Amino acid sequence: MSSASRYTYLGPEGTFTEAALHTLPEAATRELTPMVSVPVALDAVRNGEAAAAFVPIENSVEGGVTATLDELASGRPLMIYREVLLPIAFALLARPGTPLESIKTVTGHPVAQPQVRRWMAEHIPDALWESAASNADGARLVQEGRYDAAFAGEFAAATYGLEPLVTGIHDADNAATRFVLVGRPARPAAATGSDKTSVVFWLRDDHPGALLEVLQEFASRGVNMMRIESRPTGEGIGRYCFSVDCEGHLQDRRVGDVLMGLKRACEQVRYLGSYPRADGGHASERPGTTDAEFVEAADWLTRCLDGRG
Amino acid sequence: MSSASRYTYLGPEGTFTEAALHTLPEAATRELTPMVSVPVALDAVRNGEAAAAFVPIENSVEGGVTATLDELASGRPLMIYREVLLPIAFALLARPGTPLESIKTVTGHPVAQPQVRRWMAEHIPDALWESAASNADGARLVQEGRYDAAFAGEFAAATYGLEPLVTGIHDADNAATRFVLVGRPARPAAATGSDKTSVVFWLRDDHPGALLEVLQEFASRGVNMMRIESRPTGEGIGRYCFSVDCEGHLQDRRVGDVLMGLKRACEQVRYLGSYPRADGGHASERPGTTDAEFVEAADWLTRCLDGRG
Amino acid sequence: MSSASRYTYLGPEGTFTEAALHTLPEAATRELTPMVSVPVALDAVRNGEAAAAFVPIENSVEGGVTATLDELASGRPLMIYREVLLPIAFALLARPGTPLESIKTVTGHPVAQPQVRRWMAEHIPDALWESAASNADGARLVQEGRYDAAFAGEFAAATYGLEPLVTGIHDADNAATRFVLVGRPARPAAATGSDKTSVVFWLRDDHPGALLEVLQEFASRGVNMMRIESRPTGEGIGRYCFSVDCEGHLQDRRVGDVLMGLKRACEQVRYLGSYPRADGGHASERPGTTDAEFVEAADWLTRCLDGRG
Amino acid sequence: MSSASRYTYLGPEGTFTEAALHTLPEAATRELTPMVSVPVALDAVRNGEAAAAFVPIENSVEGGVTATLDELASGRPLMIYREVLLPIAFALLARPGTPLESIKTVTGHPVAQPQVRRWMAEHIPDALWESAASNADGARLVQEGRYDAAFAGEFAAATYGLEPLVTGIHDADNAATRFVLVGRPARPAAATGSDKTSVVFWLRDDHPGALLEVLQEFASRGVNMMRIESRPTGEGIGRYCFSVDCEGHLQDRRVGDVLMGLKRACEQVRYLGSYPRADGGHASERPGTTDAEFVEAADWLTRCLDGRG
Repeated sequence: MSSASRYTYLGPEGTFTEAALHTLPEAATRELTPMVSVPVALDAVRNGEAAAAFVPIENSVEGGVTATLDELASGRPLMIYREVLLPIAFALLARPGTPLESIKTVTGHPVAQPQVRRWMAEHIPDALWESAASNADGARLVQEGRYDAAFAGEFAAATYGLEPLVTGIHDADNAATRFVLVGRPARPAAATGSDKTSVVFWLRDDHPGALLEVLQEFASRGVNMMRIESRPTGEGIGRYCFSVDCEGHLQDRRVGDVLMGLKRACEQVRYLGSYPRADGGHASERPGTTDAEFVEAADWLTRCLDGRG
Repeated sequence: MSSASRYTYLGPEGTFTEAALHTLPEAATRELTPMVSVPVALDAVRNGEAAAAFVPIENSVEGGVTATLDELASGRPLMIYREVLLPIAFALLARPGTPLESIKTVTGHPVAQPQVRRWMAEHIPDALWESAASNADGARLVQEGRYDAAFAGEFAAATYGLEPLVTGIHDADNAATRFVLVGRPARPAAATGSDKTSVVFWLRDDHPGALLEVLQEFASRGVNMMRIESRPTGEGIGRYCFSVDCEGHLQDRRVGDVLMGLKRACEQVRYLGSYPRADGGHASERPGTTDAEFVEAADWLTRCLDGRG
Repeated sequence: MSSASRYTYLGPEGTFTEAALHTLPEAATRELTPMVSVPVALDAVRNGEAAAAFVPIENSVEGGVTATLDELASGRPLMIYREVLLPIAFALLARPGTPLESIKTVTGHPVAQPQVRRWMAEHIPDALWESAASNADGARLVQEGRYDAAFAGEFAAATYGLEPLVTGIHDADNAATRFVLVGRPARPAAATGSDKTSVVFWLRDDHPGALLEVLQEFASRGVNMMRIESRPTGEGIGRYCFSVDCEGHLQDRRVGDVLMGLKRACEQVRYLGSYPRADGGHASERPGTTDAEFVEAADWLTRCLDGRG
Repeated sequence: MSSASRYTYLGPEGTFTEAALHTLPEAATRELTPMVSVPVALDAVRNGEAAAAFVPIENSVEGGVTATLDELASGRPLMIYREVLLPIAFALLARPGTPLESIKTVTGHPVAQPQVRRWMAEHIPDALWESAASNADGARLVQEGRYDAAFAGEFAAATYGLEPLVTGIHDADNAATRFVLVGRPARPAAATGSDKTSVVFWLRDDHPGALLEVLQEFASRGVNMMRIESRPTGEGIGRYCFSVDCEGHLQDRRVGDVLMGLKRACEQVRYLGSYPRADGGHASERPGTTDAEFVEAADWLTRCLDGRG
């Protein structure tokens, strides 16, 4: 098979990432190759060995997938073409043979706790919670015998030699992981009316209010930010770039106008693509920000310059 | 002489307006016709009976010349092509035969007081000041015998049968009246590098912050406002339009971008022209707002849309 | 009668101002003294010769009454205690003996035109409109024979030897003049729940965005501005102060917080009073701006400082 | 030893964290106990088993230490009392016995690359870089034989059975890790003049501009933000809280005013402490934001309310 038909993804096989990838119709006709890490999966695309890479970018419990965010912000440019949302459900993992009744101590990532609290109150009301640095770390601590059980993804069981006692645990219905399909830069797919645009920018300097001024570029055109994350630039404490998703498509005049504003106001801007929203949501258009109003304003300016204002 | 060579101006002859008009080189070759009022002077332009009208628009003591502001904001569109600044100097007007030593009460517009205070302390330290509604009103009250003298323009003496006891009084060196040369809409003169742009706009609605959002259009492009005045629209208490002068020329990309922003954000916008600054000042260009940066941002957007970002 | 029971007002007798004054219940028990000008009426209060002065401050056709605005902004401080709104109706004034049918040319202030257009189309469809510098100026031009009739206040007829042919003309139902009752500074009357606060401020400097920053003080606390007017400070072209009315009472925490913000951000601030709104309107309270939320935030800060946050 | 003299820290012994802890003078007189994870180190403080915990919070290469950020934002409140900055230097780790000349492939976190690029060009110009998900991950991949060497902290060598070929590599001089000493809530230490305040807040809702409004609270008081990071709240994709460090101490009036503003504008705010800046920097005070000006404004408001404005 040629590289044009190959998709890499963050392996190994059998994880949530592979499951999410299979929700894309085109996955059925591609050669799907698991890779050892996000950078390796993306470099295969940069090097032309694969047409696209499928990687997690955001997790509503543990936050942004920093390897993905940092790779998209540095190195040879890449673009996002699709996103997939996969609901999160926890499994209660324990060492093989542990009965549910014997669970006295449990662990997991701190933000996982509110998502399993109700379930715990009902099923293991006497168990004591202590937080771990990550869900995977929690599983490891169970393996080492420090806790009786951990809340984590079901797929983590095998990695740490544990057993899922219970699966499908989720107090909150909207916990999810977001994945993106990333390729080499090209013309973004046409706007669908339910789109999202991703961009990363570096502030020109750090005067008080520099970030404020940039956010104003979004607000003044009525373009809603859906995600904002700061990431270190590697140039020292206090130096960040910002990774932002906003509603709309680059072909929307107001979004294009925001991006031109960012380009002027920022030290650097990297456009990461416009693609259909996995949540199917629609941007509300504030008066004065429709394509027609942008065209009308540009026409009026031309008339004023010509003395026909 | 044809109407093309006729300039009207706010009469009568012998006022500051005519003096200011003569500072324009082209005035030497025009037929200069005094008119009874600002609206009449401007209507002669609208009707094609004159090529341009020369009228006061702003006075650093008494404020905006509302007849001029209101005429430019309503009726058939007009445009400003030139401005002239004339320093203000007060004369002390009294009834004929009054000696300076006998002046015990003086009057004038309230904001004139700080401009003559130092002079009064030196020359008529015992005289009592009482404010009048306008400088002209002060002269009238002297004519009627209510005060001994009034501070006003020297030219007001004749109108009210008074005599200028002293002339050239001005504590503040920068007091001035601003006049504009107004014509029918046409292509604005080319940018000189020291220009000013005038515009009037009506807010879309009066939600808290509507004016703030519009001023943000100026601030976010680093375009400095030099004058802002609110004027009633005639639609009831609390309904205003705003008359604004800003630094720069419509041909400056950042100014054009501000005006497109106003066009989208406002109920209505009227472009009143771009013309050389009489004060010879220059706009400071904030990083990210030069013409080159606007062009670069637009080019970058095109490349992004083409997949070459 | 003592000065404590005397109210001055802008005379002469028989004008709209006197009519408006009589709508105040307490006017019945006061000695009402007409004065020759706004400054004279206000100075009587400053000098202790009167308890209060009643003067126009805003006209929905001709704009702010600059003498009142300037007097409140300069000289010895004064405060506003009441406001009165009086609907505007025009009279068609002509020289005595002129029949309506013979009216071929009419004049008036430019913003008066849209308010009488419908009436003209119905009653004198062939008459030609030309604008005058003010309604009073229009009446004068009729007296001088330049026009057949002028739209103005009915009371202007006598002044210019004219006759009101028709009265009560008003296309717009909400045209009005606003008057204020002004006294020496004292504790403002208690909040009624439908109040307005007036203030005048001088920007610290004229960097781009200085006005924007000050308006932000209002917007960030959800305090709606009802009027904003710029007035020259007398220090030269381009130097203004701003006269603002906003919703709410100084005793409202969010209004007090805005005023403290102005005090810090501005070169100078003058508080002009808090008083009941003549329109009976109520401010909508944005979440996070109620008195309770201000108190709660202050209490929380105290707890944080004490280590009990 | 009693719990009052015990400090926990993120173990194991021999890491950068322990090295940083020893830079605090009081560490010499405390019992220092390494803990298995950040949550466990902090829970020992919550439970009264330790007086304080010393944990990393930010890394200028890999970003915020999410376990620390999330623990401070949830669970029983804690406060930051001190911070320590430790410069970052990379070691080049390889399997034992590998000569520098034989290194053909290297790996590391993507943002580490710009920090070692110059060193690589000079010492191993032919080596090929491929990014790993983290520095630790890179070390693991070297252990597994996928790469010849990895850039990581020297202390990672032992963990993965590797050898530091070269140490002290750092192109950028200001790369650093930031650690904090965390205790139970109490009165913050007195202001030193070079302080920093930490806070975490949850936006009231996600209308466009909600974040902008909150950042405005900082900007309008001239309080500089030094760090801003978004973290998921665990309530679903698109729901964040924001962790912010700003210049100044809670006892500074402008900082207290910002925090009251956040308290009103946000769904929830958690004050995380005010403590001396490790970088010794000083906030620049914008006109209108000094303590004296805050006091003056509050006094003026009181006078206005009393009728003595």
